[in-house]
This record gives sequence, C-alpha cells and structure tokens, in this order.
Amino acid sequence: MVKKYNRFVQLMKAKPLDIYAKKFVAIITEIDAKQLGVFPLDRIGLVNTRNKKCITAIVDVTTTMFKENEIGLFKDVADFIGAKPNDKLEVMAVSQPDSVKLIKKKMRGETLTEQEIKQIVDDIAQNKLTEIDASAFITATYINGYSLEETVAMTKALVDDGNKLKIKKSPILDKHSIGGLNGRATIILVPIIAAAGCYIPKTSSRSITSAAGTADSMECLANVSLSVEQIKRITEKIGGVITWGGAVELAPADDKIIKIEHPLSLDPEGQVIASVMAKKASVGAEYLIIDLPVGPEVKVATKEKAEAMAKKFIEVGKHLGIKTEVLLTDGEEPCGNNFGAMLEAKEAMLVLEGKVFNSLAQKSCELAGALLELAGKAKKGTGYETTKEILQSGKALKKMKEIIKAQGARALSSADLKEAKLKQKVLSETDGEVTKINVRKLIMIARTAGAPADQKAGLVLLVEHNQKIRKGTPLFEIHAENKQKLELAIDLAKKDGAIELQKIIIEKIV
Amino acid sequence: MVKKYNRFVQLMKAKPLDIYAKKFVAIITEIDAKQLGVFPLDRIGLVNTRNKKCITAIVDVTTTMFKENEIGLFKDVADFIGAKPNDKLEVMAVSQPDSVKLIKKKMRGETLTEQEIKQIVDDIAQNKLTEIDASAFITATYINGYSLEETVAMTKALVDDGNKLKIKKSPILDKHSIGGLNGRATIILVPIIAAAGCYIPKTSSRSITSAAGTADSMECLANVSLSVEQIKRITEKIGGVITWGGAVELAPADDKIIKIEHPLSLDPEGQVIASVMAKKASVGAEYLIIDLPVGPEVKVATKEKAEAMAKKFIEVGKHLGIKTEVLLTDGEEPCGNNFGAMLEAKEAMLVLEGKVFNSLAQKSCELAGALLELAGKAKKGTGYETTKEILQSGKALKKMKEIIKAQGARALSSADLKEAKLKQKVLSETDGEVTKINVRKLIMIARTAGAPADQKAGLVLLVEHNQKIRKGTPLFEIHAENKQKLELAIDLAKKDGAIELQKIIIEKIV
Repeated sequence: MVKKYNRFVQLMKAKPLDIYAKKFVAIITEIDAKQLGVFPLDRIGLVNTRNKKCITAIVDVTTTMFKENEIGLFKDVADFIGAKPNDKLEVMAVSQPDSVKLIKKKMRGETLTEQEIKQIVDDIAQNKLTEIDASAFITATYINGYSLEETVAMTKALVDDGNKLKIKKSPILDKHSIGGLNGRATIILVPIIAAAGCYIPKTSSRSITSAAGTADSMECLANVSLSVEQIKRITEKIGGVITWGGAVELAPADDKIIKIEHPLSLDPEGQVIASVMAKKASVGAEYLIIDLPVGPEVKVATKEKAEAMAKKFIEVGKHLGIKTEVLLTDGEEPCGNNFGAMLEAKEAMLVLEGKVFNSLAQKSCELAGALLELAGKAKKGTGYETTKEILQSGKALKKMKEIIKAQGARALSSADLKEAKLKQKVLSETDGEVTKINVRKLIMIARTAGAPADQKAGLVLLVEHNQKIRKGTPLFEIHAENKQKLELAIDLAKKDGAIELQKIIIEKIV
Repeated sequence: MVKKYNRFVQLMKAKPLDIYAKKFVAIITEIDAKQLGVFPLDRIGLVNTRNKKCITAIVDVTTTMFKENEIGLFKDVADFIGAKPNDKLEVMAVSQPDSVKLIKKKMRGETLTEQEIKQIVDDIAQNKLTEIDASAFITATYINGYSLEETVAMTKALVDDGNKLKIKKSPILDKHSIGGLNGRATIILVPIIAAAGCYIPKTSSRSITSAAGTADSMECLANVSLSVEQIKRITEKIGGVITWGGAVELAPADDKIIKIEHPLSLDPEGQVIASVMAKKASVGAEYLIIDLPVGPEVKVATKEKAEAMAKKFIEVGKHLGIKTEVLLTDGEEPCGNNFGAMLEAKEAMLVLEGKVFNSLAQKSCELAGALLELAGKAKKGTGYETTKEILQSGKALKKMKEIIKAQGARALSSADLKEAKLKQKVLSETDGEVTKINVRKLIMIARTAGAPADQKAGLVLLVEHNQKIRKGTPLFEIHAENKQKLELAIDLAKKDGAIELQKIIIEKIV
C-alpha cells in the first residue's frame, strides 16, 4: 500500500473527532511525531489509502488521547479526505509552503511581487497557512506597510480568489464608508441611485464594534443573505440591492485575514484599502464614492492621514478601472439620532417616507449626489439638489419598497418596525449646555443594552450639540429586550458621561 | 446564582470534550456568540457556579456541534475549572489582556519597559495570549529588534517566571553552544570541569533540526529527565550533571515562545540572547562560556554579526552577574566524525576513555580551558593544557562514570553502546580531492536515516577535508534501524552531494 515517496511514510489508523476547528488539525502521539520528525504546529501530509484523497494538516501532539499509530482528525480534515474510523492513512512530514518564506521576506522589509502576494493569498484561502503564519504576515504588513504596487496586487489577488458578480447593465455605482459610527446612509442612498436609473449592488457588513451594521439594519426590513445569482437578478431588474457581504464569498481570503486582524485590533492601511477595493471590483463597480470620516474617535484621526489614504484609494481604483472619489466627513458628530439595528432602519425609513429630514438625510443626499456627478448622471454642482428631489418626490421610497419586496419583505414602512419591550430615559443630573456628544460611549451603552444581537436594542439620542438643558431633561432613551442588559446599560450610562455638559452657571457668588 | 458583574452574563451548560489543545478554548454557538458580543478568537470569562473556579478562554464558534446555551470545553479548560457535564457556568465577554496593547506598542517601534515586558511574559506563561498574539509579538520583535535594556528585561522576566536551582556550592560554571551542528563537546567538558573541582549543572536541549541534541546523546548513557531537586543534589555531590532542560520548567514562557518561533523559523536575536541567558541565570551560573559557531551554514553567518552578538551576550551577562566570554568557532567543518544520538555519545566516550583525540576532543578541551581561566581556576594561557591533562589522566572519565551512575546508568563505556542493525557505506563515484564537507547535508541524511527518533540511526564520516580519494572509497556509513528509512537516506545521499570533490585530473588530453 505504501507507494514510493521521498520522505518516511508511516501507516496510521484514522480516528475522526466530532469537532470543527475551521482549520486542518491532526493529533498524533509524541512518539509518532518524533518518528515523523515533526513538532506541534509543523505540517504533515495525509493520504487516505481507501480513496487516495489527500490533505496537508497541522500537527498537534498528545500524550494521552491516542495510541501509537493512531491519528486524531478534526472533522474538517476527516470530511476533506472522507476518513472513516480506522481507515489507513499514509502520513509523512511535509515542508512549509513557500508563502512562509515570502512572509519572512515581507518581515525583512522587502517588497513582494504580484505573484508572491497571490501565492500568500491563495495559501490563506486554502487554509495552508496557520494562524501563526497569518498573524506574522499581518504584523509585518502593519509594520512595514504596502507600496502602491503591493496594494494593487493584494486587491487583485483577493478578487481573483472569490466570486464575481457579472451584471449586464451600466453604469454600476457603489459607495463605501470606512469605520462610520452610526446612521444608515446606505439604506437611503441605494434607492436614490436606483431611482436615478443607475445600478448599485450594495454588499454591506454586520456590526463588529458599532451598535449596528447596515446588514443588521436591513435585516429588520428584508432578507440580507442573498446568493450571487439573486444579487445579480435583483440589481438588473430593480437597480439596487442591499445585502450582507458575508453571505456571498466575494473575497474569502479577505474574510480570513479580517478574522486574524480582529483579535489584534490591527488594520494595516494597505490591507484595508485592498479589502475595500477588492469587494468593489468583485461586484463590477465602475464609479465609487468613499465616505471617510475623520476625527479622534474614528479610524482615521487627522485630515492629513485621511488625504494620504484618499489618494491611495483613488490610485488603486485607477488600476482596477474604478473611478473613485473620496469624501472626508465629520467623524465626531452622530449622524442621525439612533443607535441599534432596528432603530437605525426605522430612522432611514422615516427619511425615505419624507417624515424626517435630518443630518442623516442630508449626508445621504450629499453622498448620492456626489456619486451621480462622478458617474456623469448629474451635472457638476447639481448632484445634491437632484438627489434631494428624488428623495422628496417619493421616488426613492417607491424604489426602496421594490427592493424590500425583491429581497423578501419583513417590513415595508417605519410603522411596521415595532420598538423594544423595555425602554428607559436617562436624565441630566445638572443644568448646562451640551458641549460634546461622545458617540463611542453611546455605542458602548447601546451594545450593553443588547445591540446588535437584539435587533430592537439600542438608544435614541434626545439632545443636540449646543443645546441648553435643565436638570432632569432626558438625554437619551435606552431600548432593550432583556432586563439584565437594560440595567447594565443604565449603570454604564450613569457613570460614563457620554453627554458632556458645561455648566451655565459656574459659581454662584452671594 | 448570577452575581453582579458589569457585563452581560449568560448561564450555560458545560459540555467537556476529550481533547487537549494546550490552550484554553471554549466552543459556543453563533447565536450565543452574538448574545455575548464576541467573535471567534475573542476571550470569554467562565465561572463554574458549582465550585466558583474561573478561567479566561478563547472563543471558537460552531453551527452544528452544540445547542444554544451549551458550551464545549477543551479538556484543558474543563480540568482547570473542574467542569463536569452539565455544570452550570456563568459566561461573559472579557477584554483583551493589557499585553495585547503592549504588543501593538512594540509593533509601532516603541521601546517596552521592564514592567511591560514582564506583563507580556506572564501572560504568555499563563496562556492568556493566543497564538495569534504571540506570533504578532515575535514578528514585531524580529522586525524592530530589542534594545539592550529590553533584552535584559526579557531575560529577567523569563527567569522570574520559572523554577530556579539553588546550588549551595561555588563556583558554578556553564557553557552554551548556539546552533552547533554535531559533536557532543558538552559530554566531555562537563566531567572535565567537575574533575577540576568546579560545579556545572548543565541543562541541554533535544534535537530540533540537527541529527542529535546533547540530551538525546546523553540519554543513551543515562536518564536525562531529572527534577530540579535531583539536579541540585547530584551537582552538589559530584560537581556535574547533564540533563534535559525540557524536563525542568526553568523558563516555561521561553518554551512557549520557542514553540511559536519554530514554525516560522524565526529567532529574533534579542529573544535568542534572552532565552540562553535566562536558562543560565536559572541554574545560578557565575561563569559562562558561549561557543558561537560562525559560517554560512550556521545561525550566525559572518564574523561581524557574531562579534556584535557576542558583545550583547557579555553585556546582558553583566546585568545578571554572570561573567561571560564568547568564543567564535568554525561553523563549517564537522566537529568529530559522528552524527546521531548514540554515535555522538560513543564518540564522546571514546575521547573520555583516551582512545581517540580528534577535533571534538580538542574543541572540548579548548572550551573547558577557557571556562576554567574565566573562573580563575587556571592561569591565563594554561587552561587548555590543564584540561587536556585532566582528560588524558583519566580523571574526567572517572568523573563521567560517577555522573552516569548518579543519573541512573544505561551504559558506562563506549563498548556498552551497541550499533544499529542496518549499515551501509556510501562510496565515491569518482577520483578526486575532498574540497567541502557539507555538514547540513550530512545532517539531513542522518535525519532521513531515522535520527534523532531512532537513537542508533545516523552516520559516520569516513573522509576528511583535503583528503585525496579514489573511485570506490567509502565517504560515510549510514546507520539505521528501519529499512525504509535506510533506503530513503541512501537515495538522498546519492543525489545530494554532501561531500564535494575536485577532480584531480580535470581533463585527459591525448
């Protein structure tokens, strides 16, 4: 059964385990590891002699679980090679993939070629790199940065690796926000663009650190887990769609990179740019507006950094044939008054219904207007008026209802969105003037109240900047579905000072 | 049962798994992860309500294995909190340990304080950092380097973290080789130093990439898994011991760091220096000789790099009260003729028995002589003659037999060491002169033959540099315990050209 390899091969008995690891792990005894010349976290090749299926797995070592010549297989591995209990496997040490050497090249500060970056991305996508390898790569990227050529190469590699939408209509427009804090401009912008006769297959994310992502809010209105085919069909027919990007594998390697970046809170600039642009290229975008909030509380802290980053977005866009414009926006003030999936969806619907025209409505029209101008669908300087007209005429609302229906409607109007069971207002403890609204702190309170897991949880801001208030004035209202979470949110709100006041009367002298 | 925390707490049913991960992993459903506000690789705190034991674990997420409100526990976690099936656990999200922020500080190129480095080392030792975190730290260290102060701080942190020998004798001497290739100088040097009336509690490593480590070779002669107490007692009584460092937790955090470095083949210089010096400080060394081989095939490629590294060793030694001297040695030529655990043990015993005096014997006496001079136990310039006399008088052999007996003798002489079942000589295919002996390639052949897992496997070199040989002259003899491995080693030997020949007659002109 043992065929001729150039490495020592050991026949071992498969012991499948009922555990998924989302990576390929095989467990052997210390003695067998020594025989094979491998250490924990090294790689071994496995060939199932029954069906010839093979895989490369990462070694873990046990002293107690298995006997010599037995090999424990995580379910991911067992499934991949169709291993049944006691199947005979040929097991041998295998070398590191070449991409480990390329990661070390990046560590040394050298520049990677297009081909080398593609190799790394492919190996990440195919689970050939361990978390240790991927972490080293992201750390090296964070420290040494990407050149423009590397960013372009990374973008192309991420695109090549995933699914692509092939929409047979034009022009295809898109919009992206980098680390915005609240306010679902996308839900307002997409129907405006579609109503203007353009096409916008918008994929959005769920919340990671905010109170809600666009996909979380849209999910209150319709189904957001659409297939590539559904996204294509709805966009071609109606002009727009608002879907969860995670449901379609537009850039699976990117999803794996983000999974490693998250626990380190790392987002190397080049990787962020490649990640955004790859998703836009995958949907076939021709014109793209990027909303880049700037301020000490958001990802990009200063105007200088934002301008430098904007130039890179535009350059990468050129290489991909995506005409890109970046709008620097105020990252300090809240956009609209709502935090939480359902509350933000409701606010967007109220804007579309013409019942509210607030900072969120204005920003949405400005972004949409800039996008129409960029695509040549509105004359320079007329974009904002054009989109405001589309919004106020009710055309955008009509289009939004078509989109919601096409995505399997859950709610067609703001009135359909029922509020949370539990609500409690937090009141000002003094007289004063609102000098700062700390959006980060409001988000933490909303998350503590249950956002984004509980759709209806969140908070509604009840004051605005520079407003003069009295002791007892409600500052915001917390919404929750769970009593424990509501109480924790109130505790946090009371000690956290999300709304900063300057006392109008500093001292009384009598 | 739920006490007051400042985070949302969910009561979950423990589902212990029969799998060790060597890290603390807990598996929950995607729905519970959302409820808790955590993602895969985030951290959760668990409190066993039955016994109040608690732990921080890393989150993995499943869609199939468990139901809502169930939590799968790897055996490491279940053991730590004494969890039985269906024990009720309080589960909550917990923040990243502070050391993650410190790792990011190192990534940004800033210098870490002594306290900050201690925090990172403690968190690594206590499994609070994931492999992703540790990999990021090592990568940042590799790219940005350590200052001298950071190296000293890392050394102290590694020492504080582990066990310490407290030998009540003086002077305590020690010796270390950085990435040597073959030749067990330690087995000759330790009894010489002990016979000279000094104390040398030598901890050694097993092979990672060589054909044998000192611990592998010594294991052919005696037991090398000694406790701290045994090492102390034997050293105090006999003067010397040769033991496996991995059996005593002298620097457990260091072992974990090395485990991460290995798959990346990374060894940041500062970390290597800290690792070596920590182990020396842990055994209480007062005088230390470092053997630093230099050459293109070993860790340190050039004399300039070796000199810079040597200075750092000496400086760190000063801060720890260890008088340190570094000897740059030739990293190109083999030291002795043997490769493999038993073969290298046998060669060392033959030297001690006075039956052989080769390059290995000479190097051992030089290192031992330098060490005695450093400790003031031999006059300057007389060390080599002193140690050669101790060796040739038979005093070193007598001491070695005492050491072997104290460690539970397996073999007391070279004659007790039986050779492998299978042997095959590899012959020269041409006439010529030996111009290069590629030690790396010889090691690969020895490893393919079964070293170090098979104690008797390896090879014996039969030619020397500049030797003129004929077609058919034996170049080396491969030893193996397993036919498949022998054949693979022969295949490798034939195609790999470990011995380079210059043809004496380049061309015949007739």
